[in-house]
Amino acid sequence: MQSIKWSNGRLTLLNQTLLPGIVDYIECGDYRRVAEAIRRLEVRGAPAIGAAAAFGLVLGARELAGQSLDFREALRQIADELRQTRPTAVNLFWAINRMLSAADKAPSTVSPVELLALLEQEALRIMEEDREVNGRIAQHGLVLFPHAVEAVLTHCNAGALATVDIGTALGVIRQGWQAGKFKRVFADETRPLLQGARLTAWELKEDGIPVTLITDSMAGWVMKQKKVAAVIVGADRIATNGDVANKIGTYSVAVLARQHGIPFYVAAPVSTFDFSIAGGDEIPIEERNPQEVTAIGGTLIAPDGIDVFNPAFDVTPAELVSAIITERGVLRPPYGPAIRSLRK
Amino acid sequence: MQSIKWSNGRLTLLNQTLLPGIVDYIECGDYRRVAEAIRRLEVRGAPAIGAAAAFGLVLGARELAGQSLDFREALRQIADELRQTRPTAVNLFWAINRMLSAADKAPSTVSPVELLALLEQEALRIMEEDREVNGRIAQHGLVLFPHAVEAVLTHCNAGALATVDIGTALGVIRQGWQAGKFKRVFADETRPLLQGARLTAWELKEDGIPVTLITDSMAGWVMKQKKVAAVIVGADRIATNGDVANKIGTYSVAVLARQHGIPFYVAAPVSTFDFSIAGGDEIPIEERNPQEVTAIGGTLIAPDGIDVFNPAFDVTPAELVSAIITERGVLRPPYGPAIRSLRK
Repeated sequence: MQSIKWSNGRLTLLNQTLLPGIVDYIECGDYRRVAEAIRRLEVRGAPAIGAAAAFGLVLGARELAGQSLDFREALRQIADELRQTRPTAVNLFWAINRMLSAADKAPSTVSPVELLALLEQEALRIMEEDREVNGRIAQHGLVLFPHAVEAVLTHCNAGALATVDIGTALGVIRQGWQAGKFKRVFADETRPLLQGARLTAWELKEDGIPVTLITDSMAGWVMKQKKVAAVIVGADRIATNGDVANKIGTYSVAVLARQHGIPFYVAAPVSTFDFSIAGGDEIPIEERNPQEVTAIGGTLIAPDGIDVFNPAFDVTPAELVSAIITERGVLRPPYGPAIRSLRK
Repeated sequence: MQSIKWSNGRLTLLNQTLLPGIVDYIECGDYRRVAEAIRRLEVRGAPAIGAAAAFGLVLGARELAGQSLDFREALRQIADELRQTRPTAVNLFWAINRMLSAADKAPSTVSPVELLALLEQEALRIMEEDREVNGRIAQHGLVLFPHAVEAVLTHCNAGALATVDIGTALGVIRQGWQAGKFKRVFADETRPLLQGARLTAWELKEDGIPVTLITDSMAGWVMKQKKVAAVIVGADRIATNGDVANKIGTYSVAVLARQHGIPFYVAAPVSTFDFSIAGGDEIPIEERNPQEVTAIGGTLIAPDGIDVFNPAFDVTPAELVSAIITERGVLRPPYGPAIRSLRK
């Protein structure tokens, strides 16, 4: 399965809002459609939206190439539009900035058509690097399992659907399962948008990895009954002190894991680190439409007009994180020095 | 609103599986329909299923009254059928035993018709007592709020829909709100069956009490942000050491409350205590149909045939319970002596 593809100058996205019932692809020939796909969560997962936004800029650049205007300035405006799609995941901003800086580095004499080619190469490189990064994270993750255990637990979807290749948390899980490190994965369904039930359970089942679906409310009881030996999740943004923003509910899982003496691991590429912020309280938390909570698949499950609090993410403080698995190796507390060394 | 009514020899139950979309009543003229309603969760909540089962026995007794057989023995068989509907909530067994013992206490010369009248009186007394008990629990709960706070959180539904009157946890919440002790209630939606979203949010909204609906995965984050100052839940069974079986997810909420220094209160009538068991590990935990997790309102939200773990309840150890509010007063740790004194 591949959630994001670039061929013949068009971006193809697997529409993640319809899974697992319907496997449908969205063809984007216009950056506005890419922005819409990110906003609507048709493409989701921090690394995947970074890659999608990069190709969004390529599509935007193609539109600009035929027009007589300040190319770089116009590209920056498109970048601003793409940046406004979602506030929490930092890979989005990282990929956009990397694309803009590729354009800025080109000599001013370069033609728009040459710039377009250059941007396409950079976006392809971002995608290719994500693939390599996934593989390295999965390899490094193995060191956390010196002995085989019964099962691990994950929250949300940090898998193939959230990245370009095998995923971050699910990359580690795929590799660990293949290496015989555990026999089963417990997947939190991850309300409100059910990425665990719809995406993680689907991905793992497709790969033949035994997966047990639970509601988010069952994670604590599963831990109490010693059914899982580790938690592995992805991340949307990591501060320089090691605080981790990830899907709402991650914080609860981390507290529960600590209470039960279960290690809580985060798997994320270096592009997920926000070196500009000191701690998690500086991470903006997106609040989404109340209808995500009050309706499921068109069925209203709560009284009409009820007040809803719907933060899409939460922040897990560094002290609850047992290790962070990156493509450059496994970081351990204290995270400050380890994260600073990544910046180099 | 009244979830359970007895008039003209028929039991009327508000069908809780259709709320809040449809307000529909089930007329039960046969004990088998009562058993089915308990099994299907059309009537739910520990005190309400106790009362419903009591009237189930009245309906069963009426059927027996016209037949020439050993009345008491046949009644015991009907009681066995009703006992098998749900395994965790102890009020069910408590109400059935109370009804049988009322029949057993009657002299052997009493006619089936007289026994029937006697059973109907006992069932009405169980219902009337639950009403009084609700009121006293609500009153006693007030002592836990010497100062006004911003908001409280509840899980599942221990309200009017779970009892005969204002509820246990929601009785305390109604009384506390009226007394100005807090301004708002956060309601966990309570997956898989969404009793928080469908029932608690609906009940409180009907009463004009400000309620904010959240997914279960948000409770930890809400606590971290200091939005709630206390948790109040009901119970399905309490062991003599103070361990509390309640809706799945309650245990996670209790762990999170402790982690955030927030008191965790349980409101339950004395009929919820199981004096025959020492600790929570002796409480049978009902596991229900996987489809409760994989489908919502007929919409499939997970891959077909996925493995599911679906325990309907969990056990919160006594050490996480700050106080238990009963109709005889507020119990504080250590619970052993306090619970033993209730037995008298």
